Amino acid sequence: MSDPMTLHGVFPYLVSPIDADGRVMRSVLTRLVDHLIDAGVHGLTPLGSTGEFAYLDTEQKLEIVEVVVEAARGRVPVLAGVAATTVRGGAELARAVMKRGADGVLAILEAYFPVADAGVEDYFRAVADATDGPVVLYTNPQFQRSDLSLPVLKRLSTVPNIRYIKDASTNTGRLLSILTETEGRMGVFAASSHIPACVMMIGGAGWMAGPACLIPKQSVALYDLCRRGDWAAAMALQRTLWPMNQAFARHSLAACIKGGLELQGFPVGAPLAPQTPLSTAGREELRAILSQMESYAG
Amino acid sequence: MSDPMTLHGVFPYLVSPIDADGRVMRSVLTRLVDHLIDAGVHGLTPLGSTGEFAYLDTEQKLEIVEVVVEAARGRVPVLAGVAATTVRGGAELARAVMKRGADGVLAILEAYFPVADAGVEDYFRAVADATDGPVVLYTNPQFQRSDLSLPVLKRLSTVPNIRYIKDASTNTGRLLSILTETEGRMGVFAASSHIPACVMMIGGAGWMAGPACLIPKQSVALYDLCRRGDWAAAMALQRTLWPMNQAFARHSLAACIKGGLELQGFPVGAPLAPQTPLSTAGREELRAILSQMESYAG
Amino acid sequence: MSDPMTLHGVFPYLVSPIDADGRVMRSVLTRLVDHLIDAGVHGLTPLGSTGEFAYLDTEQKLEIVEVVVEAARGRVPVLAGVAATTVRGGAELARAVMKRGADGVLAILEAYFPVADAGVEDYFRAVADATDGPVVLYTNPQFQRSDLSLPVLKRLSTVPNIRYIKDASTNTGRLLSILTETEGRMGVFAASSHIPACVMMIGGAGWMAGPACLIPKQSVALYDLCRRGDWAAAMALQRTLWPMNQAFARHSLAACIKGGLELQGFPVGAPLAPQTPLSTAGREELRAILSQMESYAG
Amino acid sequence: MSDPMTLHGVFPYLVSPIDADGRVMRSVLTRLVDHLIDAGVHGLTPLGSTGEFAYLDTEQKLEIVEVVVEAARGRVPVLAGVAATTVRGGAELARAVMKRGADGVLAILEAYFPVADAGVEDYFRAVADATDGPVVLYTNPQFQRSDLSLPVLKRLSTVPNIRYIKDASTNTGRLLSILTETEGRMGVFAASSHIPACVMMIGGAGWMAGPACLIPKQSVALYDLCRRGDWAAAMALQRTLWPMNQAFARHSLAACIKGGLELQGFPVGAPLAPQTPLSTAGREELRAILSQMESYAG
Repeated sequence: MSDPMTLHGVFPYLVSPIDADGRVMRSVLTRLVDHLIDAGVHGLTPLGSTGEFAYLDTEQKLEIVEVVVEAARGRVPVLAGVAATTVRGGAELARAVMKRGADGVLAILEAYFPVADAGVEDYFRAVADATDGPVVLYTNPQFQRSDLSLPVLKRLSTVPNIRYIKDASTNTGRLLSILTETEGRMGVFAASSHIPACVMMIGGAGWMAGPACLIPKQSVALYDLCRRGDWAAAMALQRTLWPMNQAFARHSLAACIKGGLELQGFPVGAPLAPQTPLSTAGREELRAILSQMESYAG
Repeated sequence: MSDPMTLHGVFPYLVSPIDADGRVMRSVLTRLVDHLIDAGVHGLTPLGSTGEFAYLDTEQKLEIVEVVVEAARGRVPVLAGVAATTVRGGAELARAVMKRGADGVLAILEAYFPVADAGVEDYFRAVADATDGPVVLYTNPQFQRSDLSLPVLKRLSTVPNIRYIKDASTNTGRLLSILTETEGRMGVFAASSHIPACVMMIGGAGWMAGPACLIPKQSVALYDLCRRGDWAAAMALQRTLWPMNQAFARHSLAACIKGGLELQGFPVGAPLAPQTPLSTAGREELRAILSQMESYAG
Repeated sequence: MSDPMTLHGVFPYLVSPIDADGRVMRSVLTRLVDHLIDAGVHGLTPLGSTGEFAYLDTEQKLEIVEVVVEAARGRVPVLAGVAATTVRGGAELARAVMKRGADGVLAILEAYFPVADAGVEDYFRAVADATDGPVVLYTNPQFQRSDLSLPVLKRLSTVPNIRYIKDASTNTGRLLSILTETEGRMGVFAASSHIPACVMMIGGAGWMAGPACLIPKQSVALYDLCRRGDWAAAMALQRTLWPMNQAFARHSLAACIKGGLELQGFPVGAPLAPQTPLSTAGREELRAILSQMESYAG
Repeated sequence: MSDPMTLHGVFPYLVSPIDADGRVMRSVLTRLVDHLIDAGVHGLTPLGSTGEFAYLDTEQKLEIVEVVVEAARGRVPVLAGVAATTVRGGAELARAVMKRGADGVLAILEAYFPVADAGVEDYFRAVADATDGPVVLYTNPQFQRSDLSLPVLKRLSTVPNIRYIKDASTNTGRLLSILTETEGRMGVFAASSHIPACVMMIGGAGWMAGPACLIPKQSVALYDLCRRGDWAAAMALQRTLWPMNQAFARHSLAACIKGGLELQGFPVGAPLAPQTPLSTAGREELRAILSQMESYAG
């Protein structure tokens, strides 16, 4: 972490282990953080989609950030998800997670009614203003009701600490457009809905994804090959990892990663109801995929 | 309110007046409640879509319920909106609004990921279980990511205090299907996206809608004509009121009603940012419509 | 048919009976036309959605119009569906069906790419210009890629022979808006996705629908009650007929009506492949519904 | 063309030059074909989306195939678009274009109602059966109402002459899934909605795209770099070409390419009405992009 504003590499989206009474399961989360850092990941992202941010209350969110920051012990940056529907709510939450020790934020705009471009811009500016670390803009047209248009992105890219975008669409071409139009001011992180090796080839900074919780070593190896420009080897590895991304897309995000972690010896519990845990069939499918990747210790 | 489980008539969706510092503006809300009850409305619904439930924190929500209950003084039932993404969250909020004096709840399932039918059913059963008053199920395919399927509705209709559905789609035929398939166990409330007189003709119990905040007397008059079966007069009145529904659909819900109430002398403030207030053009449009309905006192 | 421009009442959407070699099955179509006219329908509409216009070539279409016109023998007006993607194609087909004896056209704009408002207007003007009978504009947001905006509708309503709109959305409120904004210049026909009695109450001219092929007498009886303003009796009958509309929505349009007609003794064949015929379960469902309506002669 | 079943490289989607009276403009089309072959393209694809297949009648389609085949003089394979809604219609058109000299077909399923998997499979099998050359399956979730599911694709990949898929979604990951799951039996062509260099890196056979009409030399150069595995140089060139893909996505497909060809000295006319020609602003935008790529001879 030479330049605290510079992020790169593999950032697993952490799950949020919550017990049946709504309490954060601190010890398994601590153990997961240690495991991932030992595997070489470059950063940690609690409170993303996979982290069920939409299902937690503020208290649960802040406790999760606290646990992750403590467990990370400064070894890698912690980027906390900050999602809200109001400008005020986004800024408040950003301040609160920074106070708990986060190094930066993944900024998410939730919306019930459509939001005009000016409102989208206001929201992200307010969140950035409440943060002294790097801000990664998050966009997911599948789950979000608002979207970041290219003109808004260009304007936001001039805010000093808005440095990255994580795009969870399946549209890789859009990432190339963003990289081109923001002229180097904005780094791009892929999602598991993209092919990470492709995004690296077009100039990506890395990826933020749920599957990296389950295959951290392989993800880091893929990243290293891409950084070295060894595209043939990168694509060979990418092909063997692809079934994991496909499984992630087929099953519900949190259910899939929580189910896989259980198989790997991390009892992180079920996703919050009324979400349902990974089905028995999904569990067997995941077991087979992880075995093939030698990532199943169950 | 002879049978506390029986609801009918016009229920305005109340706006949530919040000042720039996030505080509930208690006096204007109290005055609005008095005004609407004086105009003859049959009930009040704080914390619906128009009430910006998706933009408020729990504390703001409970204070709004408290103010409305106090102002209503038992003259009409108060149905509070209860929206959550988790079963636990929905049940807790239901208990909390009942404790503040609500007579029943309008139950809304928020979702980030798609929810299976069993999960939808669990959610609404838990909310009903946490409530000793009547429960109105809310469904809005445009804004909600989950929906109530007909089989789930049929099963829920056998829960004793689940008595009504408020459907905010534009599909009036679906309402007739619900009425038919739940065999009299479920009453149906229209939304402003339906033509209220049509829904009354197919057997509706009334309507819950934002525009009733602005034209309460006319809404009650329409309801009375429908109840009397005077369909010719009802349709004549319905036609004159229709431009209000059209304006409501064209503009953002909360912005439209808050803007209209300002014109009528209720300074309820702007919708919460990044939502934007009613535009000047929208304001003029609304002024013209209200003048024609003799509901503009500005 | 005093004023040849005035249409009203029940217009069944005729199926297109085509044999395995692609030939029009003239005799069963002739027999169906006779049967429907005997049952009292007010007009006939070949080549609508239910008539599989999107699956027929021009020759098949013109032969169907010819057969229907001959069979109708001037007893009721025949409105032929005219669907095309190009202005030239729409005008040519309109001329061709009029030449075969159609009394007017149901004008449908097919589109592959989105069409701007001006293009939509050009298309319908060209079709109207190629026709000396009444034109019914058709809009179906579910299947069509273009849609008729209210401003375009208002402009088109001033073309002398553009007299009606058939809206196949489920949005009954939109019909009321159209009736209001075109100030009496435009009549509205409901689809089976609306509740016909409701549309009649708001001022509709009648309905065009596939189910009227299967329950023509009941449809005419419903229409008569609506015209008389006997809304209580109309709604009572409407409720008993509603299961037919629900079945129609559940199953594929052409498959449902063709399957039902087979049950009633009209061997109209299967929908064109790769469409599939009504399933055995669907067939039994339909048989039960028709029995209850005493419309099953099988 | 050693193995007539093997296709690879850059296949421009040809425009369909049609004059105001609906006649094919044979000489400009002939000249365009010569120009593209001289620039090194590996094949030609008339009657794709860009070729306005949805706007032409059968006679116009067959004449276009005839002109392109004659002009190509066997130098590169001609793959003709075959689009229909019925199994019968697809097979007939496939036979007809092969009879006019096409080397294979790009098979497109048009649909008005949703089609079940079995029907989708039947359609493509019938088209392949009617063809003795290679078949490229076409899928475009944005414009098509049916889609090719992965299970259907796997089954179709065992039909001997079904050899390729052209996927016009923006989802590059889906292409990797197809390549993986069809185990080498199916080649993949990118669309202009993908980043061609990325698709080549994951194992693509080439691309079929409208922009290749305007920048054929640059497209071929990009393809050669990809084939050589010179990914750094490929990405550098890809970045300079990307603005062309972005312009193509912003403007209507046929309008954009026809407008660009006019700038380059090919008077191919306007898209068929009610489509509109490229706007003046679009024209200037395209002129600037082409100038930068030294592809503007106007």
